[in-house]
Order: sequence, then structure tokens, then C-alpha cells
Amino acid sequence: MTALEPQPDGCFAPVIAVSQTRGDLILVCEHASNSFPAPWGDLGLGPDQRQAHIAWDPGALGLMQALARRLDASTIHATVSRLIYDCNRAPDMPGAMPARSEIHDVPGNANLSDASRLARTRAVYLPFHAALHGMIAEQIAQGRRPTVITIHSFTPVYFGQARAVEFGVIHDADDRLACAILALAKAQTDLICGLNAPYSAADDVTHTLRLQAIPYGLVNAMLEIRNDLISTPAAQEAMADRLAPVLAAALAQMTEA
Amino acid sequence: MTALEPQPDGCFAPVIAVSQTRGDLILVCEHASNSFPAPWGDLGLGPDQRQAHIAWDPGALGLMQALARRLDASTIHATVSRLIYDCNRAPDMPGAMPARSEIHDVPGNANLSDASRLARTRAVYLPFHAALHGMIAEQIAQGRRPTVITIHSFTPVYFGQARAVEFGVIHDADDRLACAILALAKAQTDLICGLNAPYSAADDVTHTLRLQAIPYGLVNAMLEIRNDLISTPAAQEAMADRLAPVLAAALAQMTEA
Repeated sequence: MTALEPQPDGCFAPVIAVSQTRGDLILVCEHASNSFPAPWGDLGLGPDQRQAHIAWDPGALGLMQALARRLDASTIHATVSRLIYDCNRAPDMPGAMPARSEIHDVPGNANLSDASRLARTRAVYLPFHAALHGMIAEQIAQGRRPTVITIHSFTPVYFGQARAVEFGVIHDADDRLACAILALAKAQTDLICGLNAPYSAADDVTHTLRLQAIPYGLVNAMLEIRNDLISTPAAQEAMADRLAPVLAAALAQMTEA
Repeated sequence: MTALEPQPDGCFAPVIAVSQTRGDLILVCEHASNSFPAPWGDLGLGPDQRQAHIAWDPGALGLMQALARRLDASTIHATVSRLIYDCNRAPDMPGAMPARSEIHDVPGNANLSDASRLARTRAVYLPFHAALHGMIAEQIAQGRRPTVITIHSFTPVYFGQARAVEFGVIHDADDRLACAILALAKAQTDLICGLNAPYSAADDVTHTLRLQAIPYGLVNAMLEIRNDLISTPAAQEAMADRLAPVLAAALAQMTEA
């Protein structure tokens, strides 16, 4: 690997699904996939590692799609593992192409050359953000004001520590929507909720919001669901049933503001 | 025009010139062109209007290129008039496709339909910013930290009022580079200088900086030169001789910080 890493032939475009009702909500799932396509392959990871939370956010794609059906949202999701390129990280952030994730070394990411980092940025990061930018700018051009919400999941045990939080709401510079969602989730569900938990913007996890929503002054937030609560399609649907009314009510408050 | 405005066949990509010395400075000229290509044509404007400052920033492209030669910078510039689409404005800003500019009506921009606004956004705005985003992200992926400076010119007389300022330095949320350039320009040149003059971020003139530089924490600034001082190629070269040392010294201060 490293300097000899083969170069991709093309780009690994994200998948977009546009609301059929012209809904103004855009849901984003940067960590939807645990696909390790050629030319990168498995990065030296075993099957268990490629299934684990280090490779993707298990359950997040299904939850996002279940929410989109209930909220008439448009969606976009990445199609390669975050370990090949994490689209929620700028190319210079350590987590963009990490050589180590939690307690796992990622052999195929050790000592990446500038050429390899550049190739992955071109193949994965730039097409993802160009596509999302297009979704946002095209809505704005038509007089609409999209809301951007990123959908993530987190592992129940991290560095050996159990996490009590079940539902985290994270904000960047604009906390309006995050605070509204948190208050409503506490009032309307029995989920154990946390603001800026288990991560916060200080951990560089709000790159998509900062790049895509903040420059346009768009209402935005990042959601984190503990992945043991959304491990099956049925659980994802059930969680969407709990969260969709919360999100709808929070969005209605934004419209009124 | 309006709802019947013909749709463009393709996109009107910007022109990029990459530094041959891997310089980390990126110069941007959103208002480089007074070209009015099909399918839009002249927007109902006369030849004098299409030559005037409302259509473009006269002299800015030549100055940018003269600065780039002296500073080993990469450059990007738009290839259609700002009256077709102003790449330094978000699609919902009044100035993006203005129906009136200063004292001039723009007939081809009156009552633009959503479809027309969408088509111009796709044809001009999105390709411009995708290209600039690529320049920036590719440098960052290789461990570099580009500086982004946008180059503009302004008219000596606006709404009938003469403007005394000759050189304006404008910042968005990050004022580090702008303040350094201003102090050095005052100390090293006899130009009449102004901070956030003749415009400021409050006038929505820092969209490119906000969209492209601020999310990455990149050093950035916007420069405005009174266009009577750069009206010929010789004047552009002479102004570049005056400003290049100022910019180089300011950039050196940023590197030291």
C-alpha cells in the first residue's frame, strides 16, 4: 500500500434520493456503507472489522431512509467505507483516512502518500460534497430554504467504556435546531438524550454542517443514535416512529422563528 | 425572457491556472468576464452597459494574473458576466441574478422564473464553486494550507458619488490576513486604503470566502481596487508591482503565526 496504492479509475459517487413532494429537508449519511471496493480493497482488515462500527455507522442508512419516508425528505449517502475516506472529515483531518480507529490499526491507511490521499479525496470526498452542494444550491435557487440533518450511529462500548446515552444531538455554530430537537426528544420520548454527546464539534465531527449548511445560514443539526437500538430493519423503523414526530415538531418551530 | 428563457446546453466552467511551483496561494476572480454567451445573450443591455462595471470588474482579471506571476499563485476566474450569474453570491441573494444593478435595469433578469434561476445556478455557480473546492481540497489533501484571496475592482463613481478609497481590504469572520494587508499597504504604498471599504461582509460580498475558506480555517481576504487605477494592461502590471510585495509580506506574517 502507501506509495504503491493503486489509483481509482473513477469516482465513487454518493446515492441521492429526491423527495417526490418537494420537501425541504435534506438528510445526509456520510457513514452509510461498509463497502471496500477496488482499487483499495479491505485495507488489510478482517471480516469482523469490516462489519464493525469503525468501518461504518451500522443502522444509520436504514434509519435515515425510514425517517425520509415519514418526513418527505431528500437523502444522500456515501457508498464506500469511512475508512477509505470519511466524508464527514476535511482531507487534512486525522479521521479522514485514519491509520488507527478506536483500538484497531488500519494497515492499508498506514503512511499514506500524498498521492494516495489526493486520489481518495478526488474519488470519494469531492464527488460527495459536490453532490450535496448541488442539492442545497438548487433548492436555494428556487426560493426554498433546506434544512440539513446528518444521521449517524455510535457504538455502545468505546475504548472499553459503556455509553449510557442513546440519542445524541450535536451542533456546530448554529444550535437552534439541535436545542429544539433535544428539548422535544426529552419531552416526547423515553430515550436517554445528550447534547453534543457522545461527540461534539470540538472533535471535528461537524465538517459537513460547517461546509454545507453554515455558509448559507441554513438550519442544521447532527443526530447520533446508539447502534444497538437500530441493529435490524424493524428496529430502524421503530426508532423512526419515535424520532420522526420529534424532528417534525422541531422543524415546525424553526419555520415559525 | 423569464419563464421562456432558453436553457443552457451545458455548463460554463471557470478557467483554472495552477502554479507551476506548487505555490499555496489561490487567487479568485469571480467578476473577470463581461461575456454574455448564448442562450442568455445580452440580457437586453446595450454595448456601453456590457462594458461597464455592472457587467464585470474591469481590470480585475489582468491584475490577478499579474499578481499570480509575481506570487507563484494558482488562479481561477469565471467566464460569464456577473449579471448572468454572480459567483460571489449565493443563489438566493438579490445580487446573484440582479434585475437592477446600481442605476441600470437588467431586462433579461426581470421576474426570472425558478426554472431560469435553477438553470443558471447549475450552469455557472455550481461548476465555479466545484472547481474552486477541488483546488482547495486537493491542496489540503497533500498537507498544504492554501490561502484564498479574491480580487475585485470597483467603480470610481457609484450612484453619482465619487469614491476616494483606492484600495479596499475586506474580511469575513477571519480578519487576520485582511488586517495584515491593510497595515502593510498603508506603510509601504501611498494608496488611499480602507478596511471593509467600499463594501463589507454585511453587504453579502464575502460569499466565496465564507463558502470556501472559512469552513477549512484557511487564511483569506478580499481585495478591491478602484478600476480607474487598473484600466490598462500596463496599469495592471504597475499595480501588481505595488501590491505583490504587500501581499507577500502579509502572507509571511501568516506563516509565522
